[in-house]
Amino acid sequence: MPADQAEQLHTDAATKRPGGRTARTAKAVLDATIAELGDVGYAALRIESVAERAGVNRATIYRRWGDKPSLVAAAFTARQVETSPPTDTGDLLEDLLSFLREVRRGFDSPWIAALIRETGPGTADNAGLREALDKIWPARFRLSREIFVRAVERGDLPAHADPDELVEAAAGPLYFRRLMLGRPLTDDFLRRTAALVIAGARHAGDERS
Amino acid sequence: MPADQAEQLHTDAATKRPGGRTARTAKAVLDATIAELGDVGYAALRIESVAERAGVNRATIYRRWGDKPSLVAAAFTARQVETSPPTDTGDLLEDLLSFLREVRRGFDSPWIAALIRETGPGTADNAGLREALDKIWPARFRLSREIFVRAVERGDLPAHADPDELVEAAAGPLYFRRLMLGRPLTDDFLRRTAALVIAGARHAGDERS
Repeated sequence: MPADQAEQLHTDAATKRPGGRTARTAKAVLDATIAELGDVGYAALRIESVAERAGVNRATIYRRWGDKPSLVAAAFTARQVETSPPTDTGDLLEDLLSFLREVRRGFDSPWIAALIRETGPGTADNAGLREALDKIWPARFRLSREIFVRAVERGDLPAHADPDELVEAAAGPLYFRRLMLGRPLTDDFLRRTAALVIAGARHAGDERS
Repeated sequence: MPADQAEQLHTDAATKRPGGRTARTAKAVLDATIAELGDVGYAALRIESVAERAGVNRATIYRRWGDKPSLVAAAFTARQVETSPPTDTGDLLEDLLSFLREVRRGFDSPWIAALIRETGPGTADNAGLREALDKIWPARFRLSREIFVRAVERGDLPAHADPDELVEAAAGPLYFRRLMLGRPLTDDFLRRTAALVIAGARHAGDERS
């Protein structure tokens, strides 16, 4: 974007701000990016609209984030950092239910909705975004696997239980029901899913197959 | 679309065909619809392009299917009908593995890829398509639930096992891993998923919770 880089030289003076404001500007831009993603999706997202929404100069965005994939990746990553580790109640079922309720809440949060919308077959042709998403999903679920790691340590699950697969086994049905079937995620469904995964983790392997 | 309805009066003579050709024309149009969906997605799909691809007059499409949501719903429904019932080997694990392998194959077939692409948050604003998809997904999985119905009848699963939930528990992790994590679906992963779901279905409920 040489045109924008040229423009940026003219606007540097106007956008320079003292320390605290830089962080606030960054937050405003990343929040606006998530909001725009939710409204129009990645393909239609324009840096111009993000700039307007955040109340900053377009050149400020280009200077700091470079291009659209990098800006979107930065916005997702910033939200990622805000994700809290899973609850540790000492009880596997309660911990897992707490995780599944957080997954359920995620479907109603703009940034997760935007993330889901841009993940999958639709973005396969966008290498930059693809690469960013490839880092974000695993990071998001690395935190959650601790639920199962702790359960194995307590002797609550057999040692051969695979924490990553159990995260997928527990979260997968929620994504499937919500996104593919368009059905609501009731608390009863969450409980039954958690109970099935825990029973499966305890007994898979000790079965006639 | 009154303009098209007017046009259609002029082209009726040109598009009228004997019996067998009508079915072939319908197939050509529905195949072209799936192909276009795969190439450009629902939002950008144009009846004009479908008509060109199928080698038929645009008016033929409007006359028979009415509008874009109806055409797309018809295309999906036609493929739906072609879906075969699940294998009946008499063995739950083998039946379930066979189903999961079909799910895996689906990700590589254009019509399922198109269906997935149009399902989810992106199409929430398109009531006509939404309604069609709401019928197609449940129909697709109604066939698969028979695997678990038969297992309950054979006494291979407890009577309280819920066939619909077990379909979601088994298929969900595949969708999650493939679409959200972008990871490959190995045969080993399918086996472990099937074993976990079967063990869970046998033991959920007879557990300390």
